[in-house]
Amino acid sequence: MKAKPKIEVCFTPQAYPLFHNPNAIVVVIDILRATSAITTAFFNGVSKMIPVATIEEAKTYLDKGYLVAAERNGELVEGFDLGNSPFGYMNAKVKGKTIAITTTNGTQAIEAARGASKIIIGSFLNMDAVITYLKEEKKDVLFVCAGWKNKFNLEDTLFAGAITHELVYKHHFDTTCDSALAGLHLYTLAKGDLFGFLANSSHRNRLSKLNLERDIKYCLTPNQCPVIPIMEGKYLVKL
Amino acid sequence: MKAKPKIEVCFTPQAYPLFHNPNAIVVVIDILRATSAITTAFFNGVSKMIPVATIEEAKTYLDKGYLVAAERNGELVEGFDLGNSPFGYMNAKVKGKTIAITTTNGTQAIEAARGASKIIIGSFLNMDAVITYLKEEKKDVLFVCAGWKNKFNLEDTLFAGAITHELVYKHHFDTTCDSALAGLHLYTLAKGDLFGFLANSSHRNRLSKLNLERDIKYCLTPNQCPVIPIMEGKYLVKL
Repeated sequence: MKAKPKIEVCFTPQAYPLFHNPNAIVVVIDILRATSAITTAFFNGVSKMIPVATIEEAKTYLDKGYLVAAERNGELVEGFDLGNSPFGYMNAKVKGKTIAITTTNGTQAIEAARGASKIIIGSFLNMDAVITYLKEEKKDVLFVCAGWKNKFNLEDTLFAGAITHELVYKHHFDTTCDSALAGLHLYTLAKGDLFGFLANSSHRNRLSKLNLERDIKYCLTPNQCPVIPIMEGKYLVKL
Repeated sequence: MKAKPKIEVCFTPQAYPLFHNPNAIVVVIDILRATSAITTAFFNGVSKMIPVATIEEAKTYLDKGYLVAAERNGELVEGFDLGNSPFGYMNAKVKGKTIAITTTNGTQAIEAARGASKIIIGSFLNMDAVITYLKEEKKDVLFVCAGWKNKFNLEDTLFAGAITHELVYKHHFDTTCDSALAGLHLYTLAKGDLFGFLANSSHRNRLSKLNLERDIKYCLTPNQCPVIPIMEGKYLVKL
């Protein structure tokens, strides 16, 4: 009997080397807000994105005439075109464009996972599309959570837990990874009210101070953008 | 108004530098089984313990005539007196002795936290004693979970969650740390049946293969050893 594909969850970019699996599809998660923004961008017609790790590298793309998104600590970095808010990408000006992007955590998670054979972008906004893709591929899955500056966060874990729940209970995937089990259990507690469950969470509080409640509510509402961004070389493109 | 003391949870030794807080009492946790064994050892009359990181260092204590405990990957290392099983310390031969100890994860967590101003040893076996101590001290608390080779584990997180639950809901501590919130939520799910909750966990499966079900049940039974081991210089002693 063929072994079931297995699910693992890596809570932070720092821990990625401990989880590297050349056979796995990596799902990068930064619910608040990088992977939600990227999903929204592709749904709104962006052609390609170029994730970069540093502000300096992002500036080189500004010099070359690209649209460039740069966020640090929840705020748009001065001098750049876009930040991390999904609403910034619901705009005709992004259609057909290639956008370079650097964020506090999300692009660091992509960077950490560069050695993976396949990297896709996950968020609640494209949840069912991601589930459909993974269950068709039938490969090992490694969720790489962006966290916050290499600390664990709840919202990324809940998303990994939501998908794990679906794949393990309905589609013959398996897990003995404690991080995946934690995500699965937390999701069963939170699923009725994700926004309420995150009321005390560190990042929701951080963003609330920046008046970003509208962003948070949007990022926690499933299946608004049924597209899957996937890495091809240095580019993110639509699958 | 004085700020409430705050609780944070660090899931792995690797992440400790991100959490270091010179004002915090560090509680090192390795439920299966190092901190359970250490708690049991002091309850059974051990005088001092010397946690060391490497097998090589442990051997130097053998040469000096100490009793020495050494465990790697769940098993006693050949040539040493004791392993990681709490039952090994329920023995008259340990009474009054100083024992050097090295383990796969637990002593690595102690090593990682060496810069902390105060380090105590926590396990379900001394749970109420730890709660009483922390609520009297009224200082910040940082739980450092040993995990498994720098990966997250469920049982250490559940213990951190159990204490967080008590301190936050009954004793005016506060937390905005997502790891602490995760532990607290998971504990509310697991508390009725810790053993059952861990049925699929990675470490319980690892130990079951070594026929250590009896150890696991013992380690998950609260308050059998009401003592608190604390670091004083290079020694663990009874508080």
